[in-house]
Parts: sequence; structure tokens; C-alpha cells
Amino acid sequence: MLRLGPCAAAAARCLPAGPRPGPLCLAGSRGSFARSRPPAGDCEPLSRQVGAAAGGERAPVLKTPKGTRDHAPAQAALRDRLLSAVVSCFKRHGAAAIDTPVLELRETLIGKYGEGTKLIYELQDQGGELLALRYDLTVPFARYLAMNKITNMKRYHVAKVYRRDNPATTRGRYREFYQCDFDIAGQFDPMIPDAECLKIVHEILTDLQLGDFVIKVNDRRILNGVFAICGVPESKFIPACCTVDKLDKMPWEEVRSEMVGEKGLSPEAADRIGEYVQLHGGLDLIERLLQDPKLSQNKLAKEGLGDMKLLFEYLTLFGITGKISFDLSLARGLDYYTGVIFEAVLLQQENEHVEEAVSVGSVAGGGRYDGLVGMFDPKGRKVPCVGVSIGIERIFSILEQRLEASGEKLRTTETQVLVATPQKHLLAARMKLISELWDAGIKAEMLYKKDPKLLKQLQYCEATGIPLAAIVGEQELADGVVKLRDVATREEVDIPREKLIDEIRRRLEP
Amino acid sequence: MLRLGPCAAAAARCLPAGPRPGPLCLAGSRGSFARSRPPAGDCEPLSRQVGAAAGGERAPVLKTPKGTRDHAPAQAALRDRLLSAVVSCFKRHGAAAIDTPVLELRETLIGKYGEGTKLIYELQDQGGELLALRYDLTVPFARYLAMNKITNMKRYHVAKVYRRDNPATTRGRYREFYQCDFDIAGQFDPMIPDAECLKIVHEILTDLQLGDFVIKVNDRRILNGVFAICGVPESKFIPACCTVDKLDKMPWEEVRSEMVGEKGLSPEAADRIGEYVQLHGGLDLIERLLQDPKLSQNKLAKEGLGDMKLLFEYLTLFGITGKISFDLSLARGLDYYTGVIFEAVLLQQENEHVEEAVSVGSVAGGGRYDGLVGMFDPKGRKVPCVGVSIGIERIFSILEQRLEASGEKLRTTETQVLVATPQKHLLAARMKLISELWDAGIKAEMLYKKDPKLLKQLQYCEATGIPLAAIVGEQELADGVVKLRDVATREEVDIPREKLIDEIRRRLEP
Repeated sequence: MLRLGPCAAAAARCLPAGPRPGPLCLAGSRGSFARSRPPAGDCEPLSRQVGAAAGGERAPVLKTPKGTRDHAPAQAALRDRLLSAVVSCFKRHGAAAIDTPVLELRETLIGKYGEGTKLIYELQDQGGELLALRYDLTVPFARYLAMNKITNMKRYHVAKVYRRDNPATTRGRYREFYQCDFDIAGQFDPMIPDAECLKIVHEILTDLQLGDFVIKVNDRRILNGVFAICGVPESKFIPACCTVDKLDKMPWEEVRSEMVGEKGLSPEAADRIGEYVQLHGGLDLIERLLQDPKLSQNKLAKEGLGDMKLLFEYLTLFGITGKISFDLSLARGLDYYTGVIFEAVLLQQENEHVEEAVSVGSVAGGGRYDGLVGMFDPKGRKVPCVGVSIGIERIFSILEQRLEASGEKLRTTETQVLVATPQKHLLAARMKLISELWDAGIKAEMLYKKDPKLLKQLQYCEATGIPLAAIVGEQELADGVVKLRDVATREEVDIPREKLIDEIRRRLEP
Repeated sequence: MLRLGPCAAAAARCLPAGPRPGPLCLAGSRGSFARSRPPAGDCEPLSRQVGAAAGGERAPVLKTPKGTRDHAPAQAALRDRLLSAVVSCFKRHGAAAIDTPVLELRETLIGKYGEGTKLIYELQDQGGELLALRYDLTVPFARYLAMNKITNMKRYHVAKVYRRDNPATTRGRYREFYQCDFDIAGQFDPMIPDAECLKIVHEILTDLQLGDFVIKVNDRRILNGVFAICGVPESKFIPACCTVDKLDKMPWEEVRSEMVGEKGLSPEAADRIGEYVQLHGGLDLIERLLQDPKLSQNKLAKEGLGDMKLLFEYLTLFGITGKISFDLSLARGLDYYTGVIFEAVLLQQENEHVEEAVSVGSVAGGGRYDGLVGMFDPKGRKVPCVGVSIGIERIFSILEQRLEASGEKLRTTETQVLVATPQKHLLAARMKLISELWDAGIKAEMLYKKDPKLLKQLQYCEATGIPLAAIVGEQELADGVVKLRDVATREEVDIPREKLIDEIRRRLEP
């Protein structure tokens, strides 16, 4: 739906002569997909702050906070297009929108994110409640369900979340970033909503033409079963999980030595774990593990494998197993997952023209969290949930690079007609005409000058991609017509004033 | 575009059995339109907080922060419709979107809002920069322009802002609320952009059918001129301004006694001011004041009156002077205005069926602020700006009440087809069919049960407003057809499977 017009100068008009607002080359964020997190802490040079405070009467520090950025019109237009595509998929699957505040009570957030808790932005105690900025959209959703005693809901939520992480804008890590979440809450037959979440990831990544991808799937119950049969004590399940999760970034030998050295697992346990977590495959692997003499004896693992088999049946019906990999190394960082977990990864840089490849990592992730709502319910009543979060910031950085490489410019406005005059003293004529166009719902602009030169007006059309110019000069006024100019072809036709609106509409038809 | 279907039960499905999430009866906010502000401070009962901290192992306080609220699907859908209408007007006038962070450096915000400064939410010092939540969208826009050395831009921005105000949800005052801003930055011929801002307010309020309204217009230069010729010392212009601004809520006698008592103006000065600020009218009043022997001698006032005359000429060309009132009592609260100021007020409760009238106050406001960008520029370079902010929260509360009174329910989802089965053991058939529909871009749902009863499935359609059901039973599978049911008429037709998508599209055409 978005026009890509020949308006190379459009962005330049609104953008500064100097460095562009917000790097166009490197953007994106980790969504909830970061596996390892650098420690919190903020190493802004003190000199800058001292400078701002002590640097005389007026030394305004002109910047956005560390790890945040503005979106210039070209970026806002691209983001809008991206969010529309994601939201339209969520709506296609029957989700309703909700909105929750950016602010939550601190106690709502504390204790839900494990290691992440120290990355929560807290507000100053200015009297009254102790507040914090939301860290994701999942915990507020669980709070919303419990607070309103809702046991059944399919919702989406697109909004900004906040993490006081060490920003690394070159790796697409921001402190303020968008999340796009789709979640299904309710007690249903197993794996049906879970399969739909994977279908959604598949649809969105296909729609956006991001190149080849794979969706890794695992189940916390299978992982825990593996740890149990390998002799890991339950208290070490979570640390073991975190280490396993690094298998996509480091070889097994390093993961093994972290398990034994840092996490205190026995070398034998680590070796036994290694036999399992390096496995990945499809239905065949599930069947094989269901026959595994040790794993099939573990109740949790058996449940998880049974559900995984069912999930694969459903994904076969959806026709998407080609992109699904049952991967026992997938663990996901967040504490609250209880069942199926998944993560989508792009397999290659989609555009060879881009010299400096963006490190994109995972672009979607999610899973089942059946215990989170119960943490908020006074009686601990559980509402099973499964959901997916689309890593919009990383996808944005890819699309931004692709656009940059193509040399195309997105139009940042949708103006259809410029109302112009060829002689002086015709401001009143322009104002009357543009008012008629606006009232007819036509997107129209005029230059804010009393007597602009016609050339300037036509150049403005070309610079900003406006397709039509409606020109009223002395002759046109006398004749009761308007000269309608096609900016691309430069063709001009006189249209009787009373037929102008219809003619413009006709020309703008797709 | 939004369907209003017979789906009374739709909201109930997603809403809790108990009290609704977020009051449907009273909502809205002041935007930047509050004239008098209660003092800051937060009187949350301490008992609640102590209770939360000391109340045993798990006593989660299930609430959103004071002065904030969730939007349930019905509210989110209504807000979406409202924001779309406003944004489509902004786009009709050729504005580009930008986005800025919710977080700003504290020093960016401090000293821009006068009295408002103490209502700014500050973040805890967790190391690094001192941050605050944005108070409006205007100061971040000015910071953006200065930071990127932009001297010419027409932008809109729809986003949440934060004020640590005493919330009064019964009067529609929230601590987190949306602002919808349209601004024109740049050095242009006088009053042309200003007139367009007023045209925008007129278009939006007309489009939304909120009932009769008036847009009050004044100019800070005229007000200052009045104060000057009445003998008010320049240091008292701002306090005098604040008092004058109360003329819409209290009679002149009270305003006068506040001027003399609290603000320390002489009784003679107050009386002279009273002769002017009680005036309101149109072009005739402007002409009269231009002839006023005292006022016409004041340079600022003369400039302001000259521009006001020009503004009225332009508004005549736009055909909207019928709703415009030149009102010398309009002063507006914010410090940064330098020229034309305006505020739109609804003249009456639009819906007599509503028993408890919402106190709506002003629903849009704005003005010219030629000095704000210069405050951020290291060399003080000015970029003249004029803009308007639509008071979306107040308008939302009116539309919410109107919807409530009408008994209509907004659909919260857009699902077009429910895929259903009439017998058991047909989950696979449903999953295959729904997958085809999704892939064809059709909005489809199915129940997340293996063997749902047909009646339940059809009731779900009626409850949520889904217009079509696509039913596959054993017979249909054998015949290679799908039974397409019109939910409203209950009419059913067998459609050959390969023609189903086309038939659904045909039926859904507007």
C-alpha cells in the first residue's frame, strides 16, 4: 500500500543538512530474545554531565537518553509499514487489542524476570506509589488477566518496553524498544493455540520477505527431564538451562566446561546432557526420544515429548514443518516459561548488496507460561497462556538497511495534490481551493508563502512525491477552471471547477 | 469503516464477570488544556502500601498505578477509531510522523512548563543520566528540531505523555494520557500556518460529530499589550495572564479580586483590564480595537491585532469563521506561547440520553511558540512554530458515553469467518481449512477444542459478530465442498472447495 515514489529529495527536505537524526545504518533491538545479557550499569562519561551542569548559563545537552533514539519521518514511515504488517496478521487470527500503562507498580514487576530484574527502570519516589517502567508486555498482560479475573482471551499488544541494559546500538540493542505480542490465554485442548502461535511467526516472516528462516522449538519439560535423568539436582535446572542456551553461540566443549566449572555440574552429568542437547530434527527425533529408555521413564519429559509430537502433527496440517526444527539446545532466557518454547532465527543476510552485515539474531520468540497469571491471583488460580513476541526492532534494522541499499525513498507524507498559483496576489484563490479539497477528503498542501514562484511549487511536488498539482491563475479564475498537472508526465489539462474533485479522485484511483 | 454489529455478548466474552476493567462511564483527560492545576502530591493511603509490604508472603496489589488505566478491547477499539480519524486529518494536511522517546534528559524538560515543572515524573538515579518522562510532545519536538538543525517541518505525533498531577478520573484527568499534536515549524508568511491549525481543529471536531463547538482565539501580544496600557508592570504579566484565564469559570468580580488581592495589581489597573478582557467577537471587534486610542499605541498589541485581522481573512476563505470567537479572556497556561493562541470548547452535552453529564471542557488547543526551539539551540537560533494538540482523552470519554448510551457494541475483532465442524474427529479438517483461509489473507478463527459442539461454534459467531461460518463435516469432505453459512440469515450453501476463497471474498465485499 505504501508508495515508493521517485522522491529522492523528500527525506532531505525534512532531514538536517548535517548528520541524520538517528543512524539509518544500524538499528533494531533484541526484543525479548537476548540470551546472554551484559551486566547493568551505565558508563556515561561523567565529564559530559559535569559539563552540562557547570558549563555556564546555557549549555543544553542536545541528545536523547542513552540507548534511546528519535524516529525521523522516513524511519517513522518504515516502522509504520512494518507494524501494520504485523498487526494485520494478529487481526487475521482474531486477536483483540488491549493497552496497559507504561508505568506499573514496582511490586508487579519484581521477581518475574530472574536476572532481568536489575534492568528495570525505577521511578523516583516522589511520594505515593513506587513505580517502574514495564520490562515487557507479558507480565502486564498476566496482571491484567488476574486483576479482571479473565480466564479466556486472545489479544495483541504493540507498545514500547524499557530495559536499563547496556545499549549496543551497533548490535541493535536499545533501552526503549517496541514489542509486538500475540497471546492466547485459556484452558484449551493441548497444542492447538501453541500451533497457531508458530503459524503466526511463519506468516509474518514469510510476508515480510526477510529471507530464509528456521523456527526452533523445544519444551521446558523435555529440558528439565533431560537434566533430571542426567543427574542434575533440581536446584541447578535453571543455571544449566542458561548454559545450554549458549549452544547457538559457542561449541559444545565450551558449554560443557562452563557447566562443570561455573555451574558445578559433574563431568559425567555434563557429558550425558551433551548427548541430548546437541540433537535437533523433526518428528523422527521425537519418535526416537519417545523410545529412549531413560528419557521415556521421566514423567515430565514424556509429557513434553507427547505434546511435541502432537504439535508437529498440527504444524503438518498447517503446512509449515519445513521451517520448524525440534532443537534440544533451545532454552530461552525468561523464568516464566513452563512448556513449549520457540525462537525464530534468520538463516542468512537477506541482501548481498549490504556490505556491513547486520547481526540480526532471533527475530521472534515465545512459549507457554501457565504459572504467571497465578502469581498475581490472590488464590493462585492459574490461567494457562501461550504467546509470541515479534522482534520488531531487529526486523526494522534489516528493512532499513535494505531500503538504504536499494536507494529507494519511502514517501513520508501522503499528499495527493499541491494547490499552486502561477502569478502573484492569488493567495486567496489558493486558500479557497485547498479548503474545498480538504473538505472533500483529498490530501492537499500549499506552500506557506503569499507569492511563491511556480517553479518552487512544482519542485516541491517532485521533492516530496506529490502526484498532482492543481493550478489556479488569473486566466483559470476567469474561465472557471483549474489546471490539473500530472507531476510525472508534466501533462496539463483544464478542468471545470465543479468537476475538479471527481477528476482528482478518478486520477488517484489505484 | 468500523462495523457496529449485533454482538452484544462480544464484550462480555472478553470482559470479566465482575466489575469492568476501567470505568466505561468516566474517562478522558485534560490534554494540555488544564487551566488551573491542583497542587502536586500524592495522597495514596499509606495503609495500602504498608499492607502490600507487610501483608504476608503473597498479597499482590492488583492495580495499575494511580491515575493510569488499562484499555480493555472495547476501549482499545474505540480509541483506535478515534486516533485514526485524527491522524487521517493530519495526513490530509500533509504532515509526516515522527517519534521521540518517552524518556528525556531531565534538563531538557526543566524550565519549560512554569508551574507544570513540579508535575514531571523523574526516574530514579540508577547511575548515569538523570531522566524524566515527557510532559508533552511540544518540548521534545523543539528539542528534536534544534538537535537536528531542522528549520522547516510539518509533523504530527500521537503518543502518551505523563503528568504527576492529582488524578481526578471523574473529571477525566489522568496521569498517563494521549496527546495528538500537529505542528508547523518554519519561517513563513504570517498567519498562513496558523490559519491551517484552526482549520484542522474545525475539520476534526466536525468529522467526529461532537456537537456544537466554538474555537476561541486570542494573541499573547494583544494580552500583553492590554496589561501594559492598563499599567501592569511587565513582571506581573504572567500572573495576570493566569488570572484572566479563569474568566471562563468564574465571574469578573472574582477574577478582579484575585488580581488585586493575590496578584497585587492596583484596583485601577484591574478595572481597566476588565474593560478589555470581557470582550469577545469577530472581525468587527478587531477593527474596533485597532481604532482604540490606547491599545493602538502599543506596538505589540498593534502587531497582534494586525495579525488577528489577517487570520480572520484567511479563516473567511476557509469558510470557518462561524465557529471562531476572538476572545480576549483566553490566555492558555503554558509559558512558551508567543503569539496566536486558541482553544476549542464544546458548547453543550451532545447526547441528552446520558444522565450524568461529562464535564468536557476544552477539546483542543494550541498556539504559536516562536522561542522554544531557540532555547535548545546553542546559538539561540529561533525556529518559529505553531501547533495544535487535540484533547483526545476528553473526546474519548464523550464517545465512550455515547456508545454506552446507544447500547451498541463495537466489535473488538475483525474475524470474517469461523471454521467449524459438525461432528467429532474433524480437528484436522478444520486446521487444514483455516490454514488455507489465513494464507489467502482471510481473517479466520476456530475454537481451540478438539471436538466442539456445532451450537457452541455458531454461538461464538453471534457473540463476537463473525459474519460467516465455513463448516466442514464428513459429508462435505466426501463431496469436496464446504458449507458456507451466513450467520445473520442462517442461510447455508455448499460451495466447491476450490471456489470457497472467491465466494468468501465476494460476500465480504462492502
